[in-house]
Amino acid sequence: MSSERLIYLPLGGAGEIGMNAYVYGWGAPGKERLIVVDMGVTFPDMDTTPGVGLIFPDIAWLEERRDRIEAVFVTHAHEDHVGAVAHYHEKLGAPLVHARAFTANIARGKMADLGGDERAVHTADPWPETIAAGPFTVGFVPISHSIPETSGLVIDTPAGRLVHTGDFKLDPAPVVGEPWDPELWEKIAAPGIKALVCDSTNVFSPHEGRSESSLAPAITRLVQEARGMFVATTFASNIARVKTLAEAGQAAGRSVCLMGRAMRRMIEAGVETGVLRDFPRTIAPEDAAQIPRENLMLIVTGSQGERRAASAQLAQGKYNGIELKAGDTFLFSSKTIPGNERGVIRIMNQFSEKGVDVVDDSSGDYHVSGHANRPDLQTVHRLMGADVVIPMHGEHRHLREHAALAGQGGAQGMLAPNGTMVDLTGDHAQVAEYVETGRTYLDGTVQIGALDGIVRDRIRMALNGHLMINVILDEDDEPLGEPWCDLMGLPETGQSRVPLSEVIEADLDQFMGRAKARVLTDDDKIEEGLRRVARQTAQREIGKKPEVTVVISRLSG
Amino acid sequence: MSSERLIYLPLGGAGEIGMNAYVYGWGAPGKERLIVVDMGVTFPDMDTTPGVGLIFPDIAWLEERRDRIEAVFVTHAHEDHVGAVAHYHEKLGAPLVHARAFTANIARGKMADLGGDERAVHTADPWPETIAAGPFTVGFVPISHSIPETSGLVIDTPAGRLVHTGDFKLDPAPVVGEPWDPELWEKIAAPGIKALVCDSTNVFSPHEGRSESSLAPAITRLVQEARGMFVATTFASNIARVKTLAEAGQAAGRSVCLMGRAMRRMIEAGVETGVLRDFPRTIAPEDAAQIPRENLMLIVTGSQGERRAASAQLAQGKYNGIELKAGDTFLFSSKTIPGNERGVIRIMNQFSEKGVDVVDDSSGDYHVSGHANRPDLQTVHRLMGADVVIPMHGEHRHLREHAALAGQGGAQGMLAPNGTMVDLTGDHAQVAEYVETGRTYLDGTVQIGALDGIVRDRIRMALNGHLMINVILDEDDEPLGEPWCDLMGLPETGQSRVPLSEVIEADLDQFMGRAKARVLTDDDKIEEGLRRVARQTAQREIGKKPEVTVVISRLSG
Repeated sequence: MSSERLIYLPLGGAGEIGMNAYVYGWGAPGKERLIVVDMGVTFPDMDTTPGVGLIFPDIAWLEERRDRIEAVFVTHAHEDHVGAVAHYHEKLGAPLVHARAFTANIARGKMADLGGDERAVHTADPWPETIAAGPFTVGFVPISHSIPETSGLVIDTPAGRLVHTGDFKLDPAPVVGEPWDPELWEKIAAPGIKALVCDSTNVFSPHEGRSESSLAPAITRLVQEARGMFVATTFASNIARVKTLAEAGQAAGRSVCLMGRAMRRMIEAGVETGVLRDFPRTIAPEDAAQIPRENLMLIVTGSQGERRAASAQLAQGKYNGIELKAGDTFLFSSKTIPGNERGVIRIMNQFSEKGVDVVDDSSGDYHVSGHANRPDLQTVHRLMGADVVIPMHGEHRHLREHAALAGQGGAQGMLAPNGTMVDLTGDHAQVAEYVETGRTYLDGTVQIGALDGIVRDRIRMALNGHLMINVILDEDDEPLGEPWCDLMGLPETGQSRVPLSEVIEADLDQFMGRAKARVLTDDDKIEEGLRRVARQTAQREIGKKPEVTVVISRLSG
Repeated sequence: MSSERLIYLPLGGAGEIGMNAYVYGWGAPGKERLIVVDMGVTFPDMDTTPGVGLIFPDIAWLEERRDRIEAVFVTHAHEDHVGAVAHYHEKLGAPLVHARAFTANIARGKMADLGGDERAVHTADPWPETIAAGPFTVGFVPISHSIPETSGLVIDTPAGRLVHTGDFKLDPAPVVGEPWDPELWEKIAAPGIKALVCDSTNVFSPHEGRSESSLAPAITRLVQEARGMFVATTFASNIARVKTLAEAGQAAGRSVCLMGRAMRRMIEAGVETGVLRDFPRTIAPEDAAQIPRENLMLIVTGSQGERRAASAQLAQGKYNGIELKAGDTFLFSSKTIPGNERGVIRIMNQFSEKGVDVVDDSSGDYHVSGHANRPDLQTVHRLMGADVVIPMHGEHRHLREHAALAGQGGAQGMLAPNGTMVDLTGDHAQVAEYVETGRTYLDGTVQIGALDGIVRDRIRMALNGHLMINVILDEDDEPLGEPWCDLMGLPETGQSRVPLSEVIEADLDQFMGRAKARVLTDDDKIEEGLRRVARQTAQREIGKKPEVTVVISRLSG
């Protein structure tokens, strides 16, 4: 039974779009040496995670096996791939983190922000260079996506070659960075690929993807024809798009200004690492207000309607001394990620109220996706000719559809959502075991578990309001004065048109008055009784049962 | 100055899609006799209105003038047009509510639910019948939409004829109810139209709208080809769609079952009012589980991912004894309203986990909109030839775009968001004044103002957690024991790895110990001090500043 095996285990990213974290292992069962591919975050929302800062995959499984981790490999610098590297570095046993120059630059910045050791991040050269990590030999193979130096990984193992695509699209002309190179990938596939672990994001998009470079003409024309100020937003990390936008501004004779910390950080990393060349000259945000509006082009963060980003600030009023007005144009060179619609629409309407013309991607002319569409996935399946295709980077519905697509192409399509440990050793991939997975929240500066009940309590207070009850008992276990009520997030008056707190206090007082000694000596019984009475009264008065906290003070007895 | 005038005033629905409420008036300024068109609701969301049940327009302006209200006219039975009629009926002075039979049936049900007087709802016959209401004569003119007996209103006034389209599309074959009848509308336009108050929802949709009847072939084919159980969801009020789906089920030899209270209520109203004929025979939900799955078709509520609706229940597990599994098909014969994406996607993934094939509207084959698209709006502008076009039923960006479109057609396009009172008396429409508008929440059974701070407090607790502090002072204003802390929605431990409440209590105790008599005799000063200390300590420990409630108990002095 203790023969060695090759395993694949997604801890995040397979069953959601976000917080990617994949593990590969080789060795005797329970003694596999491990490598980790990507360690990303996902973003909170008010519905399920109010007040949370970031969401991480739960890596308890890895933490327990930290002594077996050889290294971490990061495919590219998007937050859902690199965002948790620094937060988790210590928990993983401080392994070496390998990434190509641009990604490493971003990862080092994150390490520095958290006071971690930047030297743990190692800059990797692209294929044919490789990195030995225990039983694995890993190469970073350039592939096109929507951020520079994205790489697929070639992972050579004692059981054969694996390809982990990372996020990708097939772009022959990506404006910045390396194009999709089918010949290179054909060579990589030549020895035979055991398993292809493959991006699933756009499996439902029926048409071939479009190149990043196809956007320049339409964007250039739009900027050319604008009269007032021209403002564009896009994903800060899409350096190619920012370049296309900036060049359109330059061609129209406008001064170009980047606004938003994330965007300036990305451009800086691009320049520092030599990825980005010939970027048009830009002016500083503090100088923008001096430029006549018809000569100004802003490129700003906040394409997803984020409340604190530059777009939202400009929609609300002045930002860096600049205020948009009738005759100005605002371009969303981006798509709205599902769930962000309300925020984006809010901004669009705020601009509309100012008389600003908003242009979005509904025409299809101003944005292309960074992921491979359905026919592109089929192209890659064919090119790689892997025995097994394991879809990743997708919600469950994407993985399932992608597995079926792979099956149609003749491969074994393997549905392996988070926690599914797949044994890849033999001819046929099979499930080895199921591992418990989940989420961890960064709440303020503290990491809390998704199931700790903390966020659940916050959601309940948001839905139901919070009622606080105070009672004091004297040395003889007799109530001292009446119970006292405080409300937060509840109407002041209900059905009987007198203050809700008074109505509840009267009922609580009655309860205390009637309570027998065996209740009054027992805090749990008092609490239970007061809670029940308070909730009943509230239900009658306002049609809601609030969350209740009871505080019982006993004078030293 | 006191010559009579004709006014239009939107109190809701112009600047949002939802809670429609429009007012028309004629008379001397400040003495106009008024009619109200529609009185709808909008739905809450976790981002801005957690825990709220329904959102109503703020009708303070109308309430103050209730003695001048002649009547209410309801164009159709969608919640955003009829949902607040019963809640507001008394506040409006209990006016007559006019609606066509189907809409009246729904409105009476709502009155009954709230214990109101059903007899206040009057069933109106369609045009050429009219209703006199003070200086106005109002006719209900059939128009196609996505619910039966939708009507545009012809409002004859001493200053000329107005047309209020209500929600509409140009459908020559709407499956249920009256088709779009251009000749009828041409006759109505013949005397000349002073102002066209017009639906703006789909002004950004560039192609002509499609007929409801165009869907039957594709839906019929899909049901025909399904192997396991077939489940479809759509908007409960779209009776035509429900009929198309039911007929497809019948044609495939399946027993048809409607699930979800709202859907059964709508079909019932359709049958009761004679609007719906020849609806296929259905089986009761409690009998569905006995039918072999390949012979069963469910039509269910919950197309928007609503947590308690039938779709969500089926996605989670058993519902009415039925559980979906691999081989079954689930059809969304609906579009996802912006903001509902997360809920809908959650359901899709839950079905995917069960192996159910989910079909959505991405192909365009299984849903058509109920609103007029851009070229349809142009058709109506031309046909009506109104002097003024006032866009309504849209967000600000829709109204603005629609006004511009009307201007291109030669009319005066008038941008009039909520609160803009327009004077229509003269040749040129102009703004008469701005009226304060807003929202009112139904929270439990209580109506609260959007600006009361109640919901704001709930949002703050959801984001920041809630910390409760208790101190007791004795007769001499000296602290009795130490301050006491309770946490809700906050991590139990922070940076120093001891319970957060203990760390805070220690700092609070120190504050109390140092406080001078002039602080200890002043509840406000104690509260301010404790709050400040607690928030500082929390910020240091957990990186968050919670909401704080301080309760000070003084033993009777």
